[in-house]
Amino acid sequence: MGRSGRHDATMTPPPPSNDLHDAFSADFEHELRFTRSVLDPSNPLLRDLVGWSDRGPRPGLIAVVDSGLHAANPGLPEAIERRFDDPGLPELRETIIVPGGETAKNDPAVVETVLSAIDTHRIDRRSLVAVFGGGAVIDAVGFAASTAHRGVRLVRFASTVLAQLDAAIGVKNGINRFGKKNFIGCFDVPVAVVCDEVMLETLSDRDWRSGFSEAVKIACLKDADYLDLIENNADRIRERDPDASRPVIRRCAELHLHHITRGGDPFERAEARPLDFGHWSAHRLESITDFAVTHGEAVSIGIALDTMYSHLVDRIERAEADRVIDVLKRLGLPVHHEALHGEAILAGIEEFREHLGGRLTITLLDGIGRPVDVHEIDPEVVTRAADLLS
Amino acid sequence: MGRSGRHDATMTPPPPSNDLHDAFSADFEHELRFTRSVLDPSNPLLRDLVGWSDRGPRPGLIAVVDSGLHAANPGLPEAIERRFDDPGLPELRETIIVPGGETAKNDPAVVETVLSAIDTHRIDRRSLVAVFGGGAVIDAVGFAASTAHRGVRLVRFASTVLAQLDAAIGVKNGINRFGKKNFIGCFDVPVAVVCDEVMLETLSDRDWRSGFSEAVKIACLKDADYLDLIENNADRIRERDPDASRPVIRRCAELHLHHITRGGDPFERAEARPLDFGHWSAHRLESITDFAVTHGEAVSIGIALDTMYSHLVDRIERAEADRVIDVLKRLGLPVHHEALHGEAILAGIEEFREHLGGRLTITLLDGIGRPVDVHEIDPEVVTRAADLLS
Repeated sequence: MGRSGRHDATMTPPPPSNDLHDAFSADFEHELRFTRSVLDPSNPLLRDLVGWSDRGPRPGLIAVVDSGLHAANPGLPEAIERRFDDPGLPELRETIIVPGGETAKNDPAVVETVLSAIDTHRIDRRSLVAVFGGGAVIDAVGFAASTAHRGVRLVRFASTVLAQLDAAIGVKNGINRFGKKNFIGCFDVPVAVVCDEVMLETLSDRDWRSGFSEAVKIACLKDADYLDLIENNADRIRERDPDASRPVIRRCAELHLHHITRGGDPFERAEARPLDFGHWSAHRLESITDFAVTHGEAVSIGIALDTMYSHLVDRIERAEADRVIDVLKRLGLPVHHEALHGEAILAGIEEFREHLGGRLTITLLDGIGRPVDVHEIDPEVVTRAADLLS
Repeated sequence: MGRSGRHDATMTPPPPSNDLHDAFSADFEHELRFTRSVLDPSNPLLRDLVGWSDRGPRPGLIAVVDSGLHAANPGLPEAIERRFDDPGLPELRETIIVPGGETAKNDPAVVETVLSAIDTHRIDRRSLVAVFGGGAVIDAVGFAASTAHRGVRLVRFASTVLAQLDAAIGVKNGINRFGKKNFIGCFDVPVAVVCDEVMLETLSDRDWRSGFSEAVKIACLKDADYLDLIENNADRIRERDPDASRPVIRRCAELHLHHITRGGDPFERAEARPLDFGHWSAHRLESITDFAVTHGEAVSIGIALDTMYSHLVDRIERAEADRVIDVLKRLGLPVHHEALHGEAILAGIEEFREHLGGRLTITLLDGIGRPVDVHEIDPEVVTRAADLLS
């Protein structure tokens, strides 16, 4: 029928269908790059990742910097400015410093500031937000970027061990509300995650060490060989030897990436969240202590608790459980906290269930690299596990 | 290697890779249901869509109702309460009335109210938000639901023609900020979209008619036969004959659904947005007139303008352009507004570009069902097109 063809006015309309069901899929790409001195003008990485190819107007860019990173690297804003002088890259329109650590996720002003800068500088869906910082700042800034214009392009420059091997790899973001961690957030895939080794050099010893608990977690869940690698390098990692730390950080990032891209549930719609091993108590511990315990430390304690619990319910052998706990200690991480003994910690079980919804699903260990999901936790056994760790 | 196997301490770590790239895809399902009297306890649809199967705790539900819908149907909250008394459905925990129309998207209190209710009533990712209303309320409530716990389940009950054939079908949501339409939002797929014909019966004549401009738009873009169907039924549609309107509404919803699920770009990452035909001026017209023009009316005017523009740049024949404009008029829709003649309307071109980013991309018509993307708009031709419509 031609484009001016007409049906007769008496035609029967197509029978109306009551049910329209359609399945579809969407494709995503996840780029993760390790480098040194990404802002050095001789480093080609940024041109490779976000180079401007002269098609359409030159895109804009705003940079958002974690105050903690800025304090340790006062020259960073100038280095960012110098790098984006390059006409082959997006045009830098503003550099904003935002509070680092959990404040970034607790203070709604951080998201507001970034949204307002996106508006003021006309950052559109082809333009960029570049965030430089730790996991909390990346989470909060990422939420702003993902919701402005339904998603402007985000490049995450992960500046902590925790961010480089875990937090910045994920495809989610979020902020805290109503006193609950990550109450608000969404799933989104960044344009790229850049892990610059130089940024780790100015971390405090405490922040350096805090990151490696997530590596132990991934080893417990995914790869017994990887626990060997951590174990064999633990003392040198604690002493911040970059050659010992580098392969541990990269392998963790890779395992995390593959969990998302090859695990079959990138946007966490299934019941289980295996990567949250040790996290029910960790989240709660952070909030009970008003974040005096870092996330990495809380995760270390949470791993120790759920590993010992796994032993007490006859899953993992004592020698293996002790091995996990020993690695954490050798990395300079805590495996116990007084708050584990009170009633308050147990509220973390229900909070954890509620965030995910449906049945409680907690990951335990049948062995190293052999996770198992359970749907009940016995508070008395939690207390006994805490006692064994004290 | 057994689970307590160890590598030798002198082993060579795996060579660190600088670049980790992984592609992945995610699967989605889109459910669209047409029915009558969905809240009648004898209607099995809700049990079919969101029935509770006794696995895990009974999920919760909050209902959010558009004030416009509530004003026209004061018994609605009670009907919702009665329906969800059914133990085979989620448990209703609160029904909230929120301002209808564009106020829902302009007033940040609407999103806040819904987030706060999600927190108070412990609505988790397995629980539900049910929104009853027009496109604007569905957009704002959807944004809250999509970002709480990174997405609680949402069922959209579309109560207007515009929502049933267009707004509620999309996989996005959003609110206005900084005086810009949809500045904040995200992509998300609802659990289901329910179109209840009974809800349309209490619409004002103006709101009834406003919905059909999107049907003409879809016909212009996708399906010349569908324009025949609208044309042949236009007079009866204007008079609100349900038998003439039903197939037009359902076919539009179906074309819209297939655009999303089969068009290859469900989350609009490509440059073109063909479904936004006529929308650059429509969005601007709404904002210039402070929403005195409804979205559907503005879209009708925008379609007429871009169709006439297409003729003036030698794309569509005059007779075909006139046919589109005539259908709009016969549906009782406006095709002209005084504000089309000023400078102010032209700012809509840049606003439209900015929201999408990159090059300007405007859809014109080479014929009915034959859209074409262009990257430039001549302001003088816009003015001549407006003159021809006045």
